[in-house]
Amino acid sequence: MYSGRMGDRLPLRERKQLQARERILRAADELFRERGFEAVSVTDIVDQAEVGRTSFFRYFGDKQEVVFAHEQAMLETIGRVHRQRPEPKPASLAEAIAQLRDIVVALCAQVTEDVESYVSHYELVDGYPELRARDALKLQRQAGLLADILIERGADRSMAVLASQIALACYQAARLSAIQDPRTLVADTEAAFDQVVRLGQHG
Amino acid sequence: MYSGRMGDRLPLRERKQLQARERILRAADELFRERGFEAVSVTDIVDQAEVGRTSFFRYFGDKQEVVFAHEQAMLETIGRVHRQRPEPKPASLAEAIAQLRDIVVALCAQVTEDVESYVSHYELVDGYPELRARDALKLQRQAGLLADILIERGADRSMAVLASQIALACYQAARLSAIQDPRTLVADTEAAFDQVVRLGQHG
Repeated sequence: MYSGRMGDRLPLRERKQLQARERILRAADELFRERGFEAVSVTDIVDQAEVGRTSFFRYFGDKQEVVFAHEQAMLETIGRVHRQRPEPKPASLAEAIAQLRDIVVALCAQVTEDVESYVSHYELVDGYPELRARDALKLQRQAGLLADILIERGADRSMAVLASQIALACYQAARLSAIQDPRTLVADTEAAFDQVVRLGQHG
Repeated sequence: MYSGRMGDRLPLRERKQLQARERILRAADELFRERGFEAVSVTDIVDQAEVGRTSFFRYFGDKQEVVFAHEQAMLETIGRVHRQRPEPKPASLAEAIAQLRDIVVALCAQVTEDVESYVSHYELVDGYPELRARDALKLQRQAGLLADILIERGADRSMAVLASQIALACYQAARLSAIQDPRTLVADTEAAFDQVVRLGQHG
Protein backbone atom coordinates (compact mmCIF):
# COMPACT_ATOMS: atom_id res chain seq x y z
CA MET A 1 0.00 0.00 0.00
CA TYR A 2 1.53 3.31 -1.03
CA SER A 3 1.47 6.15 1.41
CA GLY A 4 3.19 8.84 -0.59
CA ARG A 5 6.06 10.95 0.66
CA MET A 6 5.02 13.60 3.15
CA GLY A 7 5.54 14.72 6.64
CA ASP A 8 9.07 16.09 6.95
CA ARG A 9 9.39 19.31 8.97
CA LEU A 10 5.74 19.85 9.80
CA PRO A 11 4.38 21.27 13.06
CA LEU A 12 3.77 18.69 15.79
CA ARG A 13 0.00 18.48 15.34
CA GLU A 14 0.22 17.85 11.59
CA ARG A 15 3.03 15.36 12.17
CA LYS A 16 0.88 13.43 14.64
CA GLN A 17 -2.00 13.40 12.19
CA LEU A 18 0.22 12.05 9.45
CA GLN A 19 1.53 9.42 11.86
CA ALA A 20 -2.08 8.39 12.48
CA ARG A 21 -2.58 8.14 8.72
CA GLU A 22 0.50 5.92 8.41
CA ARG A 23 -0.73 3.69 11.24
CA ILE A 24 -4.12 3.36 9.53
CA LEU A 25 -2.41 2.35 6.28
CA ARG A 26 -0.20 -0.22 7.99
CA ALA A 27 -3.09 -1.65 10.01
CA ALA A 28 -5.36 -1.90 6.96
CA ASP A 29 -2.58 -3.52 4.94
CA GLU A 30 -2.04 -6.18 7.61
CA LEU A 31 -5.75 -6.85 8.13
CA PHE A 32 -6.56 -7.05 4.40
CA ARG A 33 -3.75 -9.59 3.95
CA GLU A 34 -4.81 -11.66 6.94
CA ARG A 35 -8.58 -11.69 6.47
CA GLY A 36 -9.27 -10.42 2.96
CA PHE A 37 -10.69 -7.02 2.04
CA GLU A 38 -14.37 -7.79 2.56
CA ALA A 39 -14.04 -9.27 6.04
CA VAL A 40 -12.35 -6.16 7.47
CA SER A 41 -14.40 -3.20 8.74
CA VAL A 42 -13.38 0.40 9.40
CA THR A 43 -13.79 -0.42 13.11
CA ASP A 44 -11.29 -3.27 12.78
CA ILE A 45 -8.83 -0.91 11.12
CA VAL A 46 -9.08 1.90 13.68
CA ASP A 47 -8.87 -0.61 16.56
CA GLN A 48 -5.74 -2.19 15.12
CA ALA A 49 -4.21 1.22 14.34
CA GLU A 50 -5.18 2.57 17.77
CA VAL A 51 -6.67 5.73 16.32
CA GLY A 52 -10.17 7.20 16.50
CA ARG A 53 -12.78 7.03 13.75
CA THR A 54 -12.40 10.80 13.30
CA SER A 55 -8.78 10.29 12.31
CA PHE A 56 -9.84 7.63 9.82
CA PHE A 57 -12.43 9.82 8.15
CA ARG A 58 -10.08 12.81 8.14
CA TYR A 59 -8.05 10.97 5.52
CA PHE A 60 -10.32 8.39 3.93
CA GLY A 61 -13.87 8.60 2.64
CA ASP A 62 -14.40 4.87 3.05
CA LYS A 63 -12.57 1.56 3.41
CA GLN A 64 -11.84 1.38 -0.32
CA GLU A 65 -10.02 4.70 -0.22
CA VAL A 66 -7.37 3.22 2.07
CA VAL A 67 -6.40 0.88 -0.76
CA PHE A 68 -5.96 3.89 -3.05
CA ALA A 69 -4.12 6.07 -0.54
CA HIS A 70 -1.36 6.62 -3.11
CA GLU A 71 -3.75 8.42 -5.47
CA GLN A 72 -3.23 11.78 -3.80
CA ALA A 73 0.51 11.47 -4.34
CA MET A 74 -0.14 10.58 -8.00
CA LEU A 75 -2.36 13.62 -8.53
CA GLU A 76 0.35 15.75 -6.92
CA THR A 77 2.95 14.28 -9.27
CA ILE A 78 0.77 15.14 -12.27
CA GLY A 79 0.54 18.73 -11.05
CA ARG A 80 4.26 18.94 -10.21
CA VAL A 81 5.48 17.64 -13.60
CA HIS A 82 3.03 19.99 -15.29
CA ARG A 83 4.40 23.00 -13.41
CA GLN A 84 8.07 22.02 -13.69
CA ARG A 85 7.95 21.61 -17.45
CA PRO A 86 5.83 24.36 -18.94
CA GLU A 87 4.84 23.46 -22.48
CA PRO A 88 3.24 25.52 -25.24
CA LYS A 89 -0.18 24.87 -26.69
CA PRO A 90 0.06 21.51 -28.52
CA ALA A 91 -0.20 22.06 -32.28
CA SER A 92 -1.39 18.53 -33.05
CA LEU A 93 -2.74 15.39 -31.41
CA ALA A 94 0.76 13.90 -31.66
CA GLU A 95 2.22 16.85 -29.73
CA ALA A 96 -0.52 16.64 -27.13
CA ILE A 97 0.24 12.94 -26.59
CA ALA A 98 3.98 13.67 -26.40
CA GLN A 99 3.33 16.27 -23.69
CA LEU A 100 1.34 13.79 -21.61
CA ARG A 101 3.92 11.07 -22.10
CA ASP A 102 6.39 12.76 -19.73
CA ILE A 103 3.77 12.96 -17.01
CA VAL A 104 2.57 9.38 -17.43
CA VAL A 105 6.11 8.00 -17.41
CA ALA A 106 6.86 9.95 -14.23
CA LEU A 107 3.76 8.36 -12.67
CA CYS A 108 4.87 4.88 -13.72
CA ALA A 109 8.26 5.46 -12.15
CA GLN A 110 6.61 6.66 -8.96
CA VAL A 111 4.16 3.79 -8.51
CA THR A 112 6.80 1.13 -9.16
CA GLU A 113 9.45 2.69 -6.94
CA ASP A 114 8.47 0.19 -4.26
CA VAL A 115 8.00 -3.02 -6.31
CA GLU A 116 6.70 -5.05 -3.39
CA SER A 117 3.98 -2.51 -2.54
CA TYR A 118 2.96 -2.30 -6.18
CA VAL A 119 2.58 -6.07 -6.46
CA SER A 120 0.66 -6.44 -3.21
CA HIS A 121 -1.58 -3.48 -4.13
CA TYR A 122 -2.65 -5.08 -7.41
CA GLU A 123 -2.96 -8.53 -5.84
CA LEU A 124 -5.53 -6.99 -3.52
CA VAL A 125 -7.28 -4.90 -6.21
CA ASP A 126 -7.49 -7.78 -8.68
CA GLY A 127 -9.15 -9.96 -6.07
CA TYR A 128 -12.25 -7.76 -5.66
CA PRO A 129 -14.51 -6.42 -8.43
CA GLU A 130 -15.41 -3.39 -6.30
CA LEU A 131 -11.71 -2.49 -6.01
CA ARG A 132 -11.10 -3.09 -9.72
CA ALA A 133 -14.05 -0.79 -10.41
CA ARG A 134 -12.68 1.90 -8.09
CA ASP A 135 -9.27 1.52 -9.75
CA ALA A 136 -10.82 1.98 -13.21
CA LEU A 137 -12.61 5.10 -11.97
CA LYS A 138 -9.37 6.52 -10.53
CA LEU A 139 -7.65 6.04 -13.89
CA GLN A 140 -10.48 7.92 -15.60
CA ARG A 141 -10.11 10.71 -13.06
CA GLN A 142 -6.37 10.93 -13.80
CA ALA A 143 -7.15 11.04 -17.53
CA GLY A 144 -9.54 13.90 -16.81
CA LEU A 145 -6.78 15.80 -15.02
CA LEU A 146 -4.40 15.22 -17.94
CA ALA A 147 -7.03 16.56 -20.34
CA ASP A 148 -7.45 19.63 -18.13
CA ILE A 149 -3.70 20.33 -18.33
CA LEU A 150 -3.83 20.31 -22.13
CA ILE A 151 -6.90 22.52 -22.13
CA GLU A 152 -5.10 24.93 -19.80
CA ARG A 153 -2.27 25.02 -22.38
CA GLY A 154 -4.78 26.03 -25.04
CA ALA A 155 -5.66 22.69 -26.67
CA ASP A 156 -9.25 22.34 -27.75
CA ARG A 157 -11.35 20.05 -25.64
CA SER A 158 -11.82 17.17 -28.07
CA MET A 159 -8.07 16.95 -28.81
CA ALA A 160 -7.28 17.14 -25.10
CA VAL A 161 -9.75 14.37 -24.22
CA LEU A 162 -8.54 12.07 -27.00
CA ALA A 163 -4.86 12.65 -26.13
CA SER A 164 -5.53 11.91 -22.45
CA GLN A 165 -7.44 8.72 -23.26
CA ILE A 166 -4.61 7.60 -25.58
CA ALA A 167 -2.07 8.32 -22.85
CA LEU A 168 -4.15 6.31 -20.41
CA ALA A 169 -4.39 3.47 -22.97
CA CYS A 170 -0.59 3.30 -23.23
CA TYR A 171 -0.25 3.17 -19.48
CA GLN A 172 -3.05 0.65 -19.04
CA ALA A 173 -1.71 -1.65 -21.78
CA ALA A 174 1.73 -1.56 -20.20
CA ARG A 175 0.28 -2.16 -16.78
CA LEU A 176 -1.64 -5.21 -17.96
CA SER A 177 1.56 -6.57 -19.52
CA ALA A 178 3.77 -5.66 -16.57
CA ILE A 179 1.66 -7.22 -13.83
CA GLN A 180 4.17 -10.03 -13.39
CA ASP A 181 7.14 -7.69 -13.31
CA PRO A 182 6.46 -4.06 -12.44
CA ARG A 183 10.12 -3.22 -13.03
CA THR A 184 9.32 -3.12 -16.75
CA LEU A 185 6.34 -0.75 -16.38
CA VAL A 186 8.26 2.40 -17.33
CA ALA A 187 9.92 0.76 -20.36
CA ASP A 188 6.66 -0.93 -21.45
CA THR A 189 4.75 2.35 -21.19
CA GLU A 190 7.41 4.15 -23.24
CA ALA A 191 7.30 1.36 -25.84
CA ALA A 192 3.50 1.70 -26.06
CA PHE A 193 3.80 5.46 -26.65
CA ASP A 194 6.50 4.81 -29.29
CA GLN A 195 4.22 2.43 -31.16
CA VAL A 196 1.21 4.73 -31.01
CA VAL A 197 2.95 7.86 -32.28
CA ARG A 198 4.37 5.89 -35.24
CA LEU A 199 1.00 4.39 -36.17
CA GLY A 200 0.49 6.14 -39.54
CA GLN A 201 4.01 5.34 -40.75
CA HIS A 202 3.40 1.68 -41.66
CA GLY A 203 0.60 -0.85 -41.89
CA MET B 1 -32.06 1.69 -19.45
CA TYR B 2 -31.22 -0.69 -22.27
CA SER B 3 -32.73 -4.14 -22.19
CA GLY B 4 -31.25 -5.60 -25.36
CA ARG B 5 -33.22 -7.38 -28.04
CA MET B 6 -34.30 -10.83 -27.04
CA GLY B 7 -37.34 -12.94 -26.53
CA ASP B 8 -38.91 -13.61 -29.90
CA ARG B 9 -40.14 -17.17 -30.48
CA LEU B 10 -39.06 -18.69 -27.18
CA PRO B 11 -40.93 -21.37 -25.21
CA LEU B 12 -43.56 -20.05 -22.78
CA ARG B 13 -41.44 -20.47 -19.65
CA GLU B 14 -38.46 -18.59 -21.08
CA ARG B 15 -40.78 -15.92 -22.43
CA LYS B 16 -42.32 -15.41 -19.01
CA GLN B 17 -38.88 -15.15 -17.46
CA LEU B 18 -37.86 -12.52 -20.00
CA GLN B 19 -41.07 -10.63 -19.32
CA ALA B 20 -40.16 -10.65 -15.64
CA ARG B 21 -36.73 -9.25 -16.59
CA GLU B 22 -38.38 -6.49 -18.62
CA ARG B 23 -40.69 -5.63 -15.72
CA ILE B 24 -37.71 -5.43 -13.37
CA LEU B 25 -35.93 -3.07 -15.77
CA ARG B 26 -38.96 -0.81 -16.14
CA ALA B 27 -39.64 -0.76 -12.40
CA ALA B 28 -36.01 0.01 -11.57
CA ASP B 29 -35.91 2.74 -14.20
CA GLU B 30 -39.01 4.41 -12.74
CA LEU B 31 -37.85 4.11 -9.14
CA PHE B 32 -34.32 5.37 -9.82
CA ARG B 33 -35.77 8.42 -11.58
CA GLU B 34 -38.27 9.12 -8.81
CA ARG B 35 -36.12 8.54 -5.72
CA GLY B 36 -32.52 8.38 -6.94
CA PHE B 37 -30.35 5.29 -7.19
CA GLU B 38 -29.23 5.07 -3.57
CA ALA B 39 -32.70 5.34 -2.00
CA VAL B 40 -34.05 2.33 -3.94
CA SER B 41 -33.57 -1.23 -2.65
CA VAL B 42 -33.87 -4.56 -4.47
CA THR B 43 -37.02 -5.13 -2.40
CA ASP B 44 -38.52 -1.88 -3.74
CA ILE B 45 -37.76 -3.00 -7.28
CA VAL B 46 -39.27 -6.49 -6.99
CA ASP B 47 -42.36 -5.09 -5.22
CA GLN B 48 -42.92 -2.53 -7.95
CA ALA B 49 -42.25 -5.09 -10.70
CA GLU B 50 -44.46 -7.67 -8.98
CA VAL B 51 -41.86 -10.41 -9.32
CA GLY B 52 -40.07 -12.54 -6.72
CA ARG B 53 -36.51 -11.99 -5.50
CA THR B 54 -35.54 -15.23 -7.24
CA SER B 55 -36.49 -13.68 -10.57
CA PHE B 56 -34.41 -10.64 -9.75
CA PHE B 57 -31.31 -12.62 -8.89
CA ARG B 58 -31.76 -14.90 -11.92
CA TYR B 59 -30.85 -11.90 -14.06
CA PHE B 60 -28.97 -9.46 -11.87
CA GLY B 61 -26.14 -9.96 -9.41
CA ASP B 62 -27.04 -6.78 -7.54
CA LYS B 63 -28.87 -3.45 -7.87
CA GLN B 64 -26.06 -1.90 -9.90
CA GLU B 65 -26.31 -4.62 -12.52
CA VAL B 66 -29.84 -3.49 -13.41
CA VAL B 67 -28.33 -0.20 -14.56
CA PHE B 68 -25.95 -2.12 -16.84
CA ALA B 69 -28.50 -4.59 -18.18
CA HIS B 70 -27.48 -3.65 -21.73
CA GLU B 71 -23.97 -5.01 -21.18
CA GLN B 72 -24.94 -8.55 -22.10
CA ALA B 73 -26.32 -7.32 -25.44
CA MET B 74 -23.05 -5.41 -26.00
CA LEU B 75 -20.93 -8.47 -25.31
CA GLU B 76 -23.15 -10.41 -27.73
CA THR B 77 -22.67 -7.73 -30.37
CA ILE B 78 -18.90 -7.97 -29.97
CA GLY B 79 -19.10 -11.74 -30.49
CA ARG B 80 -21.51 -11.42 -33.41
CA VAL B 81 -19.46 -8.86 -35.35
CA HIS B 82 -16.36 -10.97 -34.69
CA ARG B 83 -18.01 -14.09 -36.15
CA GLN B 84 -19.69 -12.33 -39.08
CA ARG B 85 -16.51 -10.72 -40.30
CA PRO B 86 -13.67 -13.20 -39.95
CA GLU B 87 -10.35 -11.41 -40.20
CA PRO B 88 -6.79 -12.71 -40.58
CA LYS B 89 -4.08 -12.33 -38.01
CA PRO B 90 -3.31 -8.58 -37.80
CA ALA B 91 0.15 -7.90 -39.23
CA SER B 92 0.65 -4.64 -37.33
CA LEU B 93 -0.78 -2.57 -34.51
CA ALA B 94 -2.52 -0.39 -37.11
CA GLU B 95 -4.24 -3.45 -38.58
CA ALA B 96 -5.24 -4.68 -35.16
CA ILE B 97 -6.81 -1.31 -34.37
CA ALA B 98 -8.59 -1.27 -37.75
CA GLN B 99 -10.09 -4.69 -36.99
CA LEU B 100 -11.43 -3.51 -33.65
CA ARG B 101 -12.77 -0.31 -35.15
CA ASP B 102 -15.63 -2.16 -36.90
CA ILE B 103 -16.70 -3.79 -33.66
CA VAL B 104 -16.50 -0.60 -31.62
CA VAL B 105 -18.47 1.40 -34.19
CA ALA B 106 -21.16 -1.30 -34.22
CA LEU B 107 -21.34 -1.00 -30.43
CA CYS B 108 -21.68 2.78 -30.64
CA ALA B 109 -24.52 2.42 -33.14
CA GLN B 110 -26.23 -0.09 -30.88
CA VAL B 111 -26.05 1.89 -27.64
CA THR B 112 -27.26 5.09 -29.26
CA GLU B 113 -30.11 3.47 -31.20
CA ASP B 114 -32.46 4.68 -28.47
CA VAL B 115 -31.14 8.20 -27.79
CA GLU B 116 -33.44 8.84 -24.85
CA SER B 117 -32.39 5.65 -23.05
CA TYR B 118 -28.74 6.47 -23.67
CA VAL B 119 -29.10 9.95 -22.19
CA SER B 120 -31.06 8.81 -19.14
CA HIS B 121 -28.61 5.94 -18.57
CA TYR B 122 -25.62 8.29 -18.40
CA GLU B 123 -27.51 10.87 -16.37
CA LEU B 124 -27.99 8.14 -13.78
CA VAL B 125 -24.44 6.77 -14.02
CA ASP B 126 -22.80 10.19 -13.84
CA GLY B 127 -24.72 10.98 -10.67
CA TYR B 128 -23.17 8.19 -8.57
CA PRO B 129 -19.45 7.43 -8.17
CA GLU B 130 -20.23 3.75 -7.57
CA LEU B 131 -22.03 3.58 -10.94
CA ARG B 132 -19.25 5.49 -12.70
CA ALA B 133 -16.81 2.98 -11.20
CA ARG B 134 -18.90 0.03 -12.39
CA ASP B 135 -19.14 1.63 -15.82
CA ALA B 136 -15.36 2.04 -15.98
CA LEU B 137 -14.94 -1.61 -15.00
CA LYS B 138 -17.40 -2.73 -17.69
CA LEU B 139 -15.42 -0.81 -20.31
CA GLN B 140 -12.24 -2.55 -19.20
CA ARG B 141 -14.02 -5.89 -19.47
CA GLN B 142 -15.09 -5.06 -23.02
CA ALA B 143 -11.50 -4.09 -23.85
CA GLY B 144 -10.42 -7.47 -22.47
CA LEU B 145 -12.87 -9.23 -24.77
CA LEU B 146 -11.59 -7.22 -27.76
CA ALA B 147 -8.01 -8.21 -26.88
CA ASP B 148 -9.10 -11.87 -26.68
CA ILE B 149 -10.54 -11.66 -30.21
CA LEU B 150 -7.22 -10.41 -31.57
CA ILE B 151 -5.31 -13.09 -29.67
CA GLU B 152 -7.66 -15.69 -31.12
CA ARG B 153 -6.78 -14.36 -34.57
CA GLY B 154 -3.11 -14.89 -33.81
CA ALA B 155 -1.98 -11.46 -32.57
CA ASP B 156 0.56 -11.52 -29.78
CA ARG B 157 -0.74 -10.54 -26.40
CA SER B 158 0.98 -7.19 -25.98
CA MET B 159 -0.18 -5.97 -29.42
CA ALA B 160 -3.71 -7.21 -28.71
CA VAL B 161 -3.86 -5.47 -25.35
CA LEU B 162 -2.51 -2.17 -26.69
CA ALA B 163 -4.88 -2.24 -29.69
CA SER B 164 -7.86 -2.92 -27.46
CA GLN B 165 -6.92 -0.11 -25.07
CA ILE B 166 -6.49 2.28 -28.02
CA ALA B 167 -9.90 1.24 -29.39
CA LEU B 168 -11.42 1.85 -25.97
CA ALA B 169 -9.69 5.25 -25.82
CA CYS B 170 -11.28 6.29 -29.14
CA TYR B 171 -14.70 5.21 -27.91
CA GLN B 172 -14.29 6.83 -24.51
CA ALA B 173 -13.02 10.12 -25.96
CA ALA B 174 -15.98 10.23 -28.34
CA ARG B 175 -18.36 9.33 -25.56
CA LEU B 176 -17.07 12.13 -23.35
CA SER B 177 -17.53 14.57 -26.26
CA ALA B 178 -20.93 13.18 -27.28
CA ILE B 179 -22.60 13.29 -23.88
CA GLN B 180 -24.73 16.22 -24.93
CA ASP B 181 -25.70 14.68 -28.25
CA PRO B 182 -25.38 10.91 -28.53
CA ARG B 183 -26.40 11.07 -32.18
CA THR B 184 -22.82 12.07 -32.97
CA LEU B 185 -21.25 9.15 -31.06
CA VAL B 186 -20.69 6.96 -34.13
CA ALA B 187 -19.21 9.81 -36.18
CA ASP B 188 -17.09 11.06 -33.26
CA THR B 189 -15.74 7.57 -32.60
CA GLU B 190 -14.85 7.14 -36.28
CA ALA B 191 -13.16 10.56 -36.26
CA ALA B 192 -11.11 9.53 -33.21
CA PHE B 193 -9.97 6.32 -34.95
CA ASP B 194 -9.09 8.35 -38.08
CA GLN B 195 -6.92 10.70 -36.06
CA VAL B 196 -5.16 7.92 -34.18
CA VAL B 197 -4.25 5.82 -37.21
CA ARG B 198 -2.77 8.90 -38.93
CA LEU B 199 -0.69 9.89 -35.90
CA GLY B 200 2.77 9.31 -37.36
CA GLN B 201 2.04 11.18 -40.58
CA HIS B 202 2.39 14.68 -39.20
CA GLY B 203 3.42 16.53 -36.06
